[in-house]
Amino acid sequence: MNDPKHPLLASLKDATGLRDFSPQQLESTADEIRDVLCNLLATRTAHFASNLGVVELCLALHCEFDFRTDRLIWDTGHQIYPHKLVTGRYHSFPSIRTQGGLMGYPNPEESEYDLFMTGHAGCSVSTAVGLRSGDLMVGQPDRRTVAVIGDGAFPSGIVFEALNNAGHLEDDLTIVLNDNKMSICHRVGAVAGYLDRLRSNPYYTGLKSEVGKLLEQIPMFGDPAERFLAQLKEGVKAGLVGGMLFEELNIRYVGPIDGHDIALVRKYLAMAREMKGPVLLHVVTEKGHGYKPAAADPVFFHTPPAFEDRDGKPVPRHSDGLPPFTLHARDAISQAMAADEKVSVITAAMCQGNKLEPVREKFPKQFFDVGICESHAVAFAAGQCKAGARPIVDIYSTFLQRSYDQIFQEVSLQDLPVVFMLDRAGLTGPDGPTHHGVYDVGYMRLFPNMVVMAPGYAEELGMMLRFALDQDHPCSIRYPKASALQREQSIPEIELGKSEVIREGNDGTIVAFGAMLENALEAAELLEGELDICVINARFAKPIDGQMVKQTIETGRFVLTVEENAVMGGFGSAFLESAVAQRLDTRGVQTLGLPDRFVEHGDRNDLLHQCGLSPEAIAERCRQATPATSTVA
Amino acid sequence: MNDPKHPLLASLKDATGLRDFSPQQLESTADEIRDVLCNLLATRTAHFASNLGVVELCLALHCEFDFRTDRLIWDTGHQIYPHKLVTGRYHSFPSIRTQGGLMGYPNPEESEYDLFMTGHAGCSVSTAVGLRSGDLMVGQPDRRTVAVIGDGAFPSGIVFEALNNAGHLEDDLTIVLNDNKMSICHRVGAVAGYLDRLRSNPYYTGLKSEVGKLLEQIPMFGDPAERFLAQLKEGVKAGLVGGMLFEELNIRYVGPIDGHDIALVRKYLAMAREMKGPVLLHVVTEKGHGYKPAAADPVFFHTPPAFEDRDGKPVPRHSDGLPPFTLHARDAISQAMAADEKVSVITAAMCQGNKLEPVREKFPKQFFDVGICESHAVAFAAGQCKAGARPIVDIYSTFLQRSYDQIFQEVSLQDLPVVFMLDRAGLTGPDGPTHHGVYDVGYMRLFPNMVVMAPGYAEELGMMLRFALDQDHPCSIRYPKASALQREQSIPEIELGKSEVIREGNDGTIVAFGAMLENALEAAELLEGELDICVINARFAKPIDGQMVKQTIETGRFVLTVEENAVMGGFGSAFLESAVAQRLDTRGVQTLGLPDRFVEHGDRNDLLHQCGLSPEAIAERCRQATPATSTVA
Repeated sequence: MNDPKHPLLASLKDATGLRDFSPQQLESTADEIRDVLCNLLATRTAHFASNLGVVELCLALHCEFDFRTDRLIWDTGHQIYPHKLVTGRYHSFPSIRTQGGLMGYPNPEESEYDLFMTGHAGCSVSTAVGLRSGDLMVGQPDRRTVAVIGDGAFPSGIVFEALNNAGHLEDDLTIVLNDNKMSICHRVGAVAGYLDRLRSNPYYTGLKSEVGKLLEQIPMFGDPAERFLAQLKEGVKAGLVGGMLFEELNIRYVGPIDGHDIALVRKYLAMAREMKGPVLLHVVTEKGHGYKPAAADPVFFHTPPAFEDRDGKPVPRHSDGLPPFTLHARDAISQAMAADEKVSVITAAMCQGNKLEPVREKFPKQFFDVGICESHAVAFAAGQCKAGARPIVDIYSTFLQRSYDQIFQEVSLQDLPVVFMLDRAGLTGPDGPTHHGVYDVGYMRLFPNMVVMAPGYAEELGMMLRFALDQDHPCSIRYPKASALQREQSIPEIELGKSEVIREGNDGTIVAFGAMLENALEAAELLEGELDICVINARFAKPIDGQMVKQTIETGRFVLTVEENAVMGGFGSAFLESAVAQRLDTRGVQTLGLPDRFVEHGDRNDLLHQCGLSPEAIAERCRQATPATSTVA
Repeated sequence: MNDPKHPLLASLKDATGLRDFSPQQLESTADEIRDVLCNLLATRTAHFASNLGVVELCLALHCEFDFRTDRLIWDTGHQIYPHKLVTGRYHSFPSIRTQGGLMGYPNPEESEYDLFMTGHAGCSVSTAVGLRSGDLMVGQPDRRTVAVIGDGAFPSGIVFEALNNAGHLEDDLTIVLNDNKMSICHRVGAVAGYLDRLRSNPYYTGLKSEVGKLLEQIPMFGDPAERFLAQLKEGVKAGLVGGMLFEELNIRYVGPIDGHDIALVRKYLAMAREMKGPVLLHVVTEKGHGYKPAAADPVFFHTPPAFEDRDGKPVPRHSDGLPPFTLHARDAISQAMAADEKVSVITAAMCQGNKLEPVREKFPKQFFDVGICESHAVAFAAGQCKAGARPIVDIYSTFLQRSYDQIFQEVSLQDLPVVFMLDRAGLTGPDGPTHHGVYDVGYMRLFPNMVVMAPGYAEELGMMLRFALDQDHPCSIRYPKASALQREQSIPEIELGKSEVIREGNDGTIVAFGAMLENALEAAELLEGELDICVINARFAKPIDGQMVKQTIETGRFVLTVEENAVMGGFGSAFLESAVAQRLDTRGVQTLGLPDRFVEHGDRNDLLHQCGLSPEAIAERCRQATPATSTVA
């Protein structure tokens, strides 16, 4: 196909075509990729700076390997765009992150070049070690395996576990450490400092020959034991060359090298490919490379709003209406911190996503960014809490799954009053299934001592946080990536295990857990004149309001429970458990929520409608509900 | 109190008394502790070799710190016995691991000296970093914090996350790495190799002075840049002294030192206590130290059966009856591996607990011990599976919580047919709440694509494994630490989502999920002549047998669901979800399972009885169930 703007990309049927490109053509391909990315960003929010940073690395990888049979895992996955553009998806690329279009993460259903749907950080090395092991088991030793992981994801504990295993197994494996000095925010932690030092080591700074000279001249004095001598040489060499942290784990360290020099990256990839055992190639890149505004502010340009011109100025956005829950959460956290200096907030590298930058500025001693280390975040919070502080763990619902065992052992079992703020709890829209947070109601309510809440509207979020900070037990508060309904009426205080009647009605009841309250109320309005619907704001999934369960069922009219969570094991199940424990007749109860399948990416409201959770869909379920059959005999 | 056998231990009111002991008295205290441990092991199974190994370390810690105000976290916690003996629990010690007695792990309810109830490995450093941070926040900077962690737990990812954060925060903290070269089994992995090399470094092997000489003589040739020179010295020094893996993370490394020399350990602890920032003290100990049979076979003596004499010969045991599920699982795994060399088994350092030693011997290329790294274990399995192998992940129910996010992203989301064998799924008896595996039904069934099974009897376990290996979806199979019922009747094949009627009856139905089938059948027998009970073996919690749900409810008689899992969110909830989706009347249904509180340690059968899951308790529930009210009107 001919494309005057991007002739090289348009000409590629798959990535093998890149091997026939001249160095100059590869450079031009890089330019074309950046042009496509900038054009895309003129139309929508998407991952941007991270993709600009890996253009050359991506091209070099596809030149040196054939990933139709070789194995390539992009950790975290949001830097997948250049890969998609050169693996047969240039023409469908404009559809990315729209419903039915390409996913913004690797997707095996799109291409044989994508092996794992990723989105959570840090697992690439583990899956790569497993792929290599599996290839050896099934007699495919010629397939090469490459994992590309960013320095932001690198401190994740599973990476260390994978290196520990890789160094033990000694199977061939190339780990590309894509070091751009960034997480989504600026990276923190001791590993970051280590990588900084590696960048300044003599090899990288051009003093390699002097190191060589020195090594030759290691003094051979006295009559040392032979083992000591050998150790001495190894020690000196490793200390000088760098990469000891990897070398000590039996991983060969190579680098650091400039990740924007295609020829250089190819040369080192070719070398790593032929080396025996696990090799880590340290590649230094610039997040936002090739587009000045992004390189200058990679935090903003991680997933910027659509911008209207090549200067990166954002297009003035149509207001989405009311402010999102995330902002209310941030304000509530800030107020709690101002009121009590023992209140802390802990983020796992999501300062930006959780809009916590002002909190970080204002309360630096109460703000803790532990990096993409969710397991540590929760155990760390437990320690703080035990010492008498009042930590708030602010983590996306889907990423908190990485702390599941710490929620169990370090928090629930000790009955420590850690507060969990579960942002992005619900369908997250264009990010898709790796990012939707739709299991937390089910997984949080399993453990004893845990209180599980969700606000139905904006004001309630701050009230719930204050309530949680007054409790002696762990509490969790979930809210979606969505604007928050505001209430004008007076709002009853939060009381443990008590729901709130928002609207009276005699023809049936909708019990909404969390932000679905808005859709429930709209459904009730849609039905006005037709059905007179009672709407209840459940507030608590645990302990659930058993009295409310009894009263709604005993009206003899239908009851719909509504939640933006997997219906299996969620709030609806808690409702049923309570009903059955009270020997109530559940035949009039229906539990509405997300289905038992992974929901794709797309606009949140469209997806909710498809899943039967839009106001219209809820209203229709009310119409279909037949009060007659639910009357207690 | 006077005690002719252990006068020193008996004289201690709390650990402060140790400070008044002479070096000779401390040695005698160590002897007394070992005598107590040997006496205990003459009476029951308990953790043994790990406790023998930390006697001197424990005494030194309590001499150098005052842990009524200072903070001590014992990672994993099963090496807590000497600590209990010197912190006011000598007289109650004989009750350890019996119901109502001392717990075999740290327990804050027993003593102010125990801060966290631990049992899962690797979290101590995180909680210690958090404790220190919390103490600083609340204005208690004089409290010192110590975490003691074994080399087996050390590769757990959360340790790396904690070090990354500790090196960044730079708060004072002492991490004692208790290196006994063991997990429960012999340790594996690259970190193990690294620690071995540290032990052989010149400082430890007595060549310290020669290193010093060498450092003084580093050649100062040419005219190198100043920075290069500084790096050079640092590099050489670090390379020689060892501990780079820690030093690079901004953790000061000290050691290794002999952990059985009380005076030496005290000296280094005192030094570490006064150092600024995080310090890792590498202490070398021998698991089983001071009792020859245990030192010679620390795997067997990790939790040996009661032994009758000081030679460590086990007491001939009364047969517990039928072989446990674990052995049937091992045999089934072995058979699957023999039948197909693409089948692998992955253990997270639980080769011994899962009785896999013969499998490791027989199929070394299909056996993978990844160390105490459950997150990696599951992502590694996903990689193997993607490459066409058929991995079986064999992990205790409670420890699999550490892989929760990998079960989500790497397995369920990719719909890879990884097989999960969840051992110890249920009440584990004397280990207590950290080890009971009672949430997995709830947490495994939340994710799409997952099949959740449990065998009711021995033969079914192998059938379920074969069935799982034939599926294209992930499957999990749970079974308790208990003997397995054997069936003499012919057994129907496993069919996806189909239950099995074991016993007909007209007065009510018990639907048992998993091994509770045995208690259900015994309950039915107890009721013979009184009530005629139908007993169903559910086999699947997901997909649940909806037809069975319908038929049992439509009998109009009571239905009891029974499971050895938290009743909240478990099999019973799945049953209710199915019933309500089919608009069935649930008023005759009762869900029996474990309560919404942490169940203590004790004899499994006693605990089951307390929780209403013994045959007698189930029979009583049947009597109380009133069929009349459940008749559909």
